[in-house]
Amino acid sequence: MVNFANRMDNIKASDVRELLKLTARPEIISFAGGLPAPELFPVADLKTAMDAVMDENGTAALQYGVTEGPRHLREQIAARLADKNNIHTDPDHLILTAGSQQGLDFIGKLFLNPGDVVVLESPSYLGAINAFKQYEPNFVEVPTDDGGMIIEELDRVLATTENVKLIYVIPDFQNPSGRTMPLERRKQFMEVISKYEIPTIEDNPYGDLRFKGEFLPALRSMDEKDLIIYFGTFSKILSPGFRMGWINAREEIIEKVNLIMQASALQTPTINALVISKYLDMFDIDEHVEKIRAVYKRRAQLMIDTMRAEFPPQVKFTDPDGGLFTWVELPEGIDTRELAPKAMAQNVAYVPGSGFYPSGNTKNCMRLNYSNATDERIVEGIKRLGKVLREALA
Amino acid sequence: MVNFANRMDNIKASDVRELLKLTARPEIISFAGGLPAPELFPVADLKTAMDAVMDENGTAALQYGVTEGPRHLREQIAARLADKNNIHTDPDHLILTAGSQQGLDFIGKLFLNPGDVVVLESPSYLGAINAFKQYEPNFVEVPTDDGGMIIEELDRVLATTENVKLIYVIPDFQNPSGRTMPLERRKQFMEVISKYEIPTIEDNPYGDLRFKGEFLPALRSMDEKDLIIYFGTFSKILSPGFRMGWINAREEIIEKVNLIMQASALQTPTINALVISKYLDMFDIDEHVEKIRAVYKRRAQLMIDTMRAEFPPQVKFTDPDGGLFTWVELPEGIDTRELAPKAMAQNVAYVPGSGFYPSGNTKNCMRLNYSNATDERIVEGIKRLGKVLREALA
Repeated sequence: MVNFANRMDNIKASDVRELLKLTARPEIISFAGGLPAPELFPVADLKTAMDAVMDENGTAALQYGVTEGPRHLREQIAARLADKNNIHTDPDHLILTAGSQQGLDFIGKLFLNPGDVVVLESPSYLGAINAFKQYEPNFVEVPTDDGGMIIEELDRVLATTENVKLIYVIPDFQNPSGRTMPLERRKQFMEVISKYEIPTIEDNPYGDLRFKGEFLPALRSMDEKDLIIYFGTFSKILSPGFRMGWINAREEIIEKVNLIMQASALQTPTINALVISKYLDMFDIDEHVEKIRAVYKRRAQLMIDTMRAEFPPQVKFTDPDGGLFTWVELPEGIDTRELAPKAMAQNVAYVPGSGFYPSGNTKNCMRLNYSNATDERIVEGIKRLGKVLREALA
Repeated sequence: MVNFANRMDNIKASDVRELLKLTARPEIISFAGGLPAPELFPVADLKTAMDAVMDENGTAALQYGVTEGPRHLREQIAARLADKNNIHTDPDHLILTAGSQQGLDFIGKLFLNPGDVVVLESPSYLGAINAFKQYEPNFVEVPTDDGGMIIEELDRVLATTENVKLIYVIPDFQNPSGRTMPLERRKQFMEVISKYEIPTIEDNPYGDLRFKGEFLPALRSMDEKDLIIYFGTFSKILSPGFRMGWINAREEIIEKVNLIMQASALQTPTINALVISKYLDMFDIDEHVEKIRAVYKRRAQLMIDTMRAEFPPQVKFTDPDGGLFTWVELPEGIDTRELAPKAMAQNVAYVPGSGFYPSGNTKNCMRLNYSNATDERIVEGIKRLGKVLREALA
């Protein structure tokens, strides 16, 4: 009886979601989520920051605030972007968002008419695909190798595709693949998007979490034509429960996102922004991030080493330099969605890979998360998964 | 060079916004915002609740949580809805939103194709109009009297208009008019919407803030056909800076809003939900709301009394039984948008009324807020405004 809008045909419950709900059961070893290690959250320091905000600035923290977020926090983010990423921006070209997910929704809303084209890595982040799907675009997937998008393919797509409104890319420790775009590829990427002048989201939630190899500059730091819409977040370095991310882009885009924020949510929570700002004033976030890096490095290495020992030799997987994920590729013909209930029967969970392709056509991959499991559970879970894979490939 | 989506043609910066930015200057007496009185915020109690959450449940508070929000808070909201509003609902038919503004965006996204019709009171809340405009609907305004929508007009509109997908109504202390729909009118309203079976948002941010007259039941409590999408919020009774509202509706709608939340923001902030939940467990919110009511009653009465003394006799205004606003109607031919700079020259600000009409055609009204000014500033500001009005009508 109730008639929903056409766009809702694109927004469906995932059929793996019911399966993943079961991962809350303690006997399940889950590599399925993308959760940070909660034991590393700076609970005491954030409590100290909260108390300071409530003591010094309580009524302002509880009141409405400006749409774009408190200026002091935007100044702190701008200073950190300059210091860490060589991105030099006016704080007024930053707007806070309720995590990067809200940014993805807003940028989709800003650019996409039904039928417009979004170009993205194959595979790409399923949360971005789902955010954009709300605006009924077509997706064009660019084939990738170990360095991310294959530039010749990107060039070919942009040369031959009408109505490309947006490119979406995660250069550092990509979700789901764990891969990183090398420096030379970044330069080539910037040349190609500059040729076609297509606005491009650089989503960088994991950039601070490099635990191997050399720092690589953000696309935004090489962005002479001001095409990059840069996404950052405190979710992976401080707390996802705060829902606090930001967008940095050219003024014209930030002004439009500001209007969308007013119409869609008014603002991010004043208190959350002020507490993070106070935390950054009172504590050394880099020291905190260093602790996260050390733990994730150990967990990633342990997962890789255990996969090498336990997985059949036909199974390939990535060896990430940072971030939260590794990507496992089984021989073609194996459908990881069909395999998931068998893994659940062994009390181990992963995310089947097909959701990371808008077409859903690649079925033989899975994403594994190593940030949210103890060493013991990583070893035990990979052993169980190895058994499932050996049986499937037997 | 950058091509935005068509919907952005509907999302424009308000030309009064620049004017209203000036209201931050301390010499300006502003009746323009819709801000709660900050001196009434329970800063110490919320700090106590925060500390308890961080001590007892810190890692969970900082981690990702479920899309719909923590179950205990949804149980508390359900219990309060039953107790205060005679609305009996399963906590699973509630979803938390980042204030009601996010709910308006999500319900617009759920129902509206371009060209679909939204039916609303004339005037209506400008934040709702702006949220819906993102989905390119047509608006049909139903004429109102002192009791809200004129039922015969609503019936006629629904009988003669194609593609009505949504009705939007604020029965209690409406924004901007301050008017309340009487009991008999509520019954008639429910009869009419039940006849046409149109999903209807009952937006009730102010219902707890009645300071005169008798309690009236929510439309949702008379909703035999389960058509009402009920919006509540903690913004006006606890803190707008927390950005915490909720939607209660039929299961089918809540399930779809859940999918939209996943794609648009993932969830509201875990910590904000847990802190409000803890506050409700530790403290008596009704006692707190009673304090707000007493202050707003005094401020409303003082504004009304001062307007009676200071405004020219041709100027009409509403005498609200609760909420935050009174609505002032000048003789036709006076444009309150043109008058606003003259008021600002006297250091007094209001919101011109035309933004509360999708058509923008009614120009002789203004909205005044009394919740966010001291007694002294209410008297002084209304005197200044009276001078401006006397000159304009001379």
